[in-house]
Amino acid sequence: MTVHPSPVLRSLASAQPADQAAVRRSNLALVLRHLGARGSRSRAGIAADTGLNKATVSSLVAELVDRGLVREGEPHRAGAVGRPGKDVALDGRCVGGIGVEVNVDYLTAVVLDLTSTVLFEQRVALDVPSLPPEDVLDAVAGLTSRAIRECERRDVLPVGVTVAIPALVDVAAGVVAFAPNLRWRDVPVVRGLADRLTGPLAEHPMPIRVANDANLAALGEHAMGGVAGTADLVHLTGGMGVGAGVISGGRLLGGAEGFSGEVGHIQLDPAGHECGCGRRGCWETLVGMAGMLRLAADADDPVSDPALGLDQRLDMIRCRAETGDRRTLDALERVGAGLGVGAAILINFVNPRAVVLGGYFACLGPYLLGPMRAELRARVIAPDIGGCRVELSTLGFAAASRGGANAALEAVFDDPAIVPIRSAARVSATGSG
Amino acid sequence: MTVHPSPVLRSLASAQPADQAAVRRSNLALVLRHLGARGSRSRAGIAADTGLNKATVSSLVAELVDRGLVREGEPHRAGAVGRPGKDVALDGRCVGGIGVEVNVDYLTAVVLDLTSTVLFEQRVALDVPSLPPEDVLDAVAGLTSRAIRECERRDVLPVGVTVAIPALVDVAAGVVAFAPNLRWRDVPVVRGLADRLTGPLAEHPMPIRVANDANLAALGEHAMGGVAGTADLVHLTGGMGVGAGVISGGRLLGGAEGFSGEVGHIQLDPAGHECGCGRRGCWETLVGMAGMLRLAADADDPVSDPALGLDQRLDMIRCRAETGDRRTLDALERVGAGLGVGAAILINFVNPRAVVLGGYFACLGPYLLGPMRAELRARVIAPDIGGCRVELSTLGFAAASRGGANAALEAVFDDPAIVPIRSAARVSATGSG
Repeated sequence: MTVHPSPVLRSLASAQPADQAAVRRSNLALVLRHLGARGSRSRAGIAADTGLNKATVSSLVAELVDRGLVREGEPHRAGAVGRPGKDVALDGRCVGGIGVEVNVDYLTAVVLDLTSTVLFEQRVALDVPSLPPEDVLDAVAGLTSRAIRECERRDVLPVGVTVAIPALVDVAAGVVAFAPNLRWRDVPVVRGLADRLTGPLAEHPMPIRVANDANLAALGEHAMGGVAGTADLVHLTGGMGVGAGVISGGRLLGGAEGFSGEVGHIQLDPAGHECGCGRRGCWETLVGMAGMLRLAADADDPVSDPALGLDQRLDMIRCRAETGDRRTLDALERVGAGLGVGAAILINFVNPRAVVLGGYFACLGPYLLGPMRAELRARVIAPDIGGCRVELSTLGFAAASRGGANAALEAVFDDPAIVPIRSAARVSATGSG
Repeated sequence: MTVHPSPVLRSLASAQPADQAAVRRSNLALVLRHLGARGSRSRAGIAADTGLNKATVSSLVAELVDRGLVREGEPHRAGAVGRPGKDVALDGRCVGGIGVEVNVDYLTAVVLDLTSTVLFEQRVALDVPSLPPEDVLDAVAGLTSRAIRECERRDVLPVGVTVAIPALVDVAAGVVAFAPNLRWRDVPVVRGLADRLTGPLAEHPMPIRVANDANLAALGEHAMGGVAGTADLVHLTGGMGVGAGVISGGRLLGGAEGFSGEVGHIQLDPAGHECGCGRRGCWETLVGMAGMLRLAADADDPVSDPALGLDQRLDMIRCRAETGDRRTLDALERVGAGLGVGAAILINFVNPRAVVLGGYFACLGPYLLGPMRAELRARVIAPDIGGCRVELSTLGFAAASRGGANAALEAVFDDPAIVPIRSAARVSATGSG
């Protein structure tokens, strides 16, 4: 598959010096990114696309093959004359990025290879808010160890771990500043995990990072979702609250301190329902899961049973909608309209190419899209909603962990030379193709 | 002065190939940007900062001196030993960027040199909405010609013109799609100006561009305002409406189609005042100039006289506030609080390091800041307002034209080689310093 890597979680780009060694590394990265973004290519095609000369491309490709990051394809005849050329393509199999998500009632870990193929994915139920953070970190470390062992079993080099948490995260310090739904405050996640993973990290030194789940979900969509490669997108996660992640100009908009995307408490109506934040009519009182349930069912309705799992609850709602239950359909129509009212603010402000509905919005999307789009047409100032389309996430609840794994893989796209040369049998680069 | 150039109005950065000629140009640009951002430096200091070797830096500096973009400073002794070194610094004098603003009741043109020093600035009153766009473009062309002639008179090479308009602008096409306050729709500004400036453009071929005024104002603040160099900032322009410009990660957030920053119609209260857009309680009904006046004075009050100029009106309001007029103070307090309610939404979404109040907000800022900050403290989710400070613009109504001129100068920072070698007397680069 085609992947769309994007710079992540690091200080934003500035002009870089270019001495000879740096040029080589930067060109290695250029070719690898190019193959990641554009798929299989002949050496001549890479040269034409990147402006590098053919001999340089052949040498760079040979090094990337040696590092196990690129493979030769089948010979083909590009035109009527000349020797048959061989395309080269990203070889995902040698490195793995690990994404872990900590959420209210589950942990997920995923390993993606360089082509975003899933090598490992595991979800475990955990009542996170009821546990001390130390116990949760024990469980996270256990799940991460399993992911690393799976990499070892497959002879895959793990290159990084990114933990997604619904929280205000100090990315630079590796600390969760505040996660209201988890009841965490000032939890040093990176240090805590590094302390618990000294064994595996000694064997596979790699960075551990922690970031906001909505931001990572946006990265996941940008890397491998239905709108992959879209340079300007907003991802909205529907859960207990509603969070936003923004990709702008192909880069994550993290904000000055990484605290971007807090959109749940946009006050849409000072006379609206009471919110947990103490105000009334916040966006999430209207479109968060609790708000949707309040509209769709009474408190003693089975669908409101707190013991119900997330998937079961959504299945019940969807089933009622499918069978034409009036109250459910009305509720979803109001949630869809509420999504449009809030999303119009975001679209007017940042003019994205796409808004992706994730989390529970994706599950119930077919009932939300119509009323949402009607509000957008009425409220977005730019003609034709500013060229923005609304899509349902194809990743659903997996977007954040996938985004985390993709973020970890960025290290390889930034500097392919971090992956050691695997093969002594250096592939000859004769400049063919 | 120190300037903070930032990429503008062009497709966002992606990995670039680096062959030898490209490396030279990219390194020229690197050194020029470095001097622009950091001020005067020794060659050794540039080498240390950029990672380039000293001989390369000397050769690059020599070329930049030849192109008139860098000058030698006075000799100094960096330490106790060694030959005295000479610092080098940006030499702004040889090139000029032209910024033009078209607004409801005036046109402005400004010429800035490479150090953002003002070489020329002229404002002419014009009742733009009452004129056909053709007539306005005639006036804009006349003012731009005057700016170009001033460049000629000073032996300054004009490198571009950027026109700021309060409008939805199709930057790529050079067309104003819709400017409600000017009553413009689908006006081909770039073509119209190029047609009117064939003479000057034949002598000085240079790009003409058009962009949204709030976006350019944000660039102006980033380049030369009180928060210059701040990588993440939001600029709010107070006028008839309220517009936002966003700098994110040091780059303008233009959006997918350049339609970002439309924040005036965020609906803060469905039960609020009627807005020109047909809804109620939009942000600009509360904080736009008309909303402020409605609070501060009756319709027959002299301050509400439509014949009054902008500056006079603001002087009267400020004077009343200074003398403690209760109604005026109450009005400004409510406008300040309204600013806080709306700005909290933007801050929660993009987590800027600074919000800059421009336009009329800057004039009356001392009365707005207190109540605004109180609302922000109550409404921004991240602790300590997410590390965001609120500042009054030091550029005021000049921010957009300054931003336009800075945008035009970016061409030089991107590729210093567009400026021809001026001096046959090549300055020797002996690697001293």
